[in-house]
Amino acid sequence: MSDIHGSAQLGERVVIEKDVKIGKNVVIGHHSVILQGTEIGDNVTVGCNCVLGIRPAVNQRMRETSNANRQLVIQSGTRIGHLVSIYSGTELGKDVFIGDHASIRENVSVADESVIGRAAIVELNTKIGKRCTVQTQAYVTGDTTLEDHVFIGPCVSMSNDKYMGAQAYSLKGPHIRKGAKIGNNASLLPGVTVGHNTIIGAGAVVTKDTEDNIVAAGVPARKIK
Amino acid sequence: MSDIHGSAQLGERVVIEKDVKIGKNVVIGHHSVILQGTEIGDNVTVGCNCVLGIRPAVNQRMRETSNANRQLVIQSGTRIGHLVSIYSGTELGKDVFIGDHASIRENVSVADESVIGRAAIVELNTKIGKRCTVQTQAYVTGDTTLEDHVFIGPCVSMSNDKYMGAQAYSLKGPHIRKGAKIGNNASLLPGVTVGHNTIIGAGAVVTKDTEDNIVAAGVPARKIK
Amino acid sequence: MSDIHGSAQLGERVVIEKDVKIGKNVVIGHHSVILQGTEIGDNVTVGCNCVLGIRPAVNQRMRETSNANRQLVIQSGTRIGHLVSIYSGTELGKDVFIGDHASIRENVSVADESVIGRAAIVELNTKIGKRCTVQTQAYVTGDTTLEDHVFIGPCVSMSNDKYMGAQAYSLKGPHIRKGAKIGNNASLLPGVTVGHNTIIGAGAVVTKDTEDNIVAAGVPARKIK
Repeated sequence: MSDIHGSAQLGERVVIEKDVKIGKNVVIGHHSVILQGTEIGDNVTVGCNCVLGIRPAVNQRMRETSNANRQLVIQSGTRIGHLVSIYSGTELGKDVFIGDHASIRENVSVADESVIGRAAIVELNTKIGKRCTVQTQAYVTGDTTLEDHVFIGPCVSMSNDKYMGAQAYSLKGPHIRKGAKIGNNASLLPGVTVGHNTIIGAGAVVTKDTEDNIVAAGVPARKIK
Repeated sequence: MSDIHGSAQLGERVVIEKDVKIGKNVVIGHHSVILQGTEIGDNVTVGCNCVLGIRPAVNQRMRETSNANRQLVIQSGTRIGHLVSIYSGTELGKDVFIGDHASIRENVSVADESVIGRAAIVELNTKIGKRCTVQTQAYVTGDTTLEDHVFIGPCVSMSNDKYMGAQAYSLKGPHIRKGAKIGNNASLLPGVTVGHNTIIGAGAVVTKDTEDNIVAAGVPARKIK
Repeated sequence: MSDIHGSAQLGERVVIEKDVKIGKNVVIGHHSVILQGTEIGDNVTVGCNCVLGIRPAVNQRMRETSNANRQLVIQSGTRIGHLVSIYSGTELGKDVFIGDHASIRENVSVADESVIGRAAIVELNTKIGKRCTVQTQAYVTGDTTLEDHVFIGPCVSMSNDKYMGAQAYSLKGPHIRKGAKIGNNASLLPGVTVGHNTIIGAGAVVTKDTEDNIVAAGVPARKIK
């Protein structure tokens, strides 16, 4: 059985599976699908044609995650766009904004008031701090940390697999320190740390850790200020 | 009440909200959602699972636009793919083509016979001229102008915020002059102008205005011809 | 009439058009659309809100393909995510994995056990070998060949049109030889060949053919090892 508050406004042909909890004043758009076990807080808005609470599917060549039984939790005031997919085992804080066509994998946390842009993708096991901005089409790979107040520009790309599938390797994404800003279409290599308040130029390729409070740009990225 | 011409072919479980106008010989795919106030011209085709006429949603950290009451207008002969989202306050001209998974924000105009590719994104307050091509996965940021006959290659990235959210700043996207061509995965910085018929190489990072009729490439982009 | 095996589990409001074949133990998520003529093998899983078997739509400025009457064939054991679009005239092998939000055009073949990542796009007339990985948001252009065991990193971009629409030109995408690995956000120009087991660095721009068994990086890409 699901627990849907009487004040919820559901669009046409919304599918709500069992064990779903929906708080006060929630709005869900037409044709959206809320899968088993999802918890949606008060005043949350969900667009049309979304799929929320997806259980991870794996094939023999992909990692299995251990949290297959945990639910998706969406805290109060968060707004989710249209045509969005979000997995189970993930928690979105309060007043988060998720753009249309975005996709967020399992075991991700997005802290209060952060923005995940249109068609941006956040892979599994990633932590995103408070008031971060992940711009349109940016790719936040798995096993990544964004501290608070980080800005990821549009179309930024990250990777977490140094050997591109060729060796047994503990996957490690970038670590972006508080207040750092990454310019549009920059590329970050596996495991790099970007320092506090550091700015990375558009189109830069960050191949190693950067200091705090600098500006770096180019291919490969070098300190320019 | 909506005004749907008798010749319209609607797929299964299409949702049509009130105050929608649908012209002659329109085809709408299964499960698509046409939101309140949308105007669809004659001979328009819409794919499955689309969401058309979205009212802008904003949070406290995002800009409010002034045209929240204007509708989405789609002129005759235009074809829209599957899983597409388009906002209200936008106008698509005649014989425009919008690829699958594309997203177009509010207050955008796309002139006749232009092509917006698969999974391409066009942000708010942007003008796209006649017979332009915006290729697959390209990102056209807000406050951008593409004059007529512009070609934007696949995965091109643009930005419009020089200070990456850090300062009060009037956002300004690139201005691409008539006939210019931008190679795949190039990055354009906020406010840059690309000259008439100028060609930008693949992967280039355009940091300042370019002349007309040249070829520029590299990081940062320099004139090579 | 469609031929749906009695063991199939269909979600709510799945649309199945005529002449569809569905094998044993197939699972199809809520709101997905299976268009006319699609053939789905045993043990295939399809997510929610997908559109499978799309007939190519063209406008006057786009190429018409000759296989408009061929169906989409999905072989046994393949898993397809949510919000995916796949065209008719394409064949997916056994135990293939297609990520959420991915899009695959017509006349594509994907061989057994390959992975097409989340929001990745594969354009028309492309051949993908066995056990390839095309990572998240990567763009595989039309008329491209990936031999077996190729790795395409996240956000990789390719193009197949040397003149960007300006001249009559036979379109030709890259050819990636067996075992080659392309780093994240690299750009490949039309018609380039990447050699056997060659590794291309993140953010590189590959402007000409590379040798076998080398490492190349930079803009433009040069041999570094």
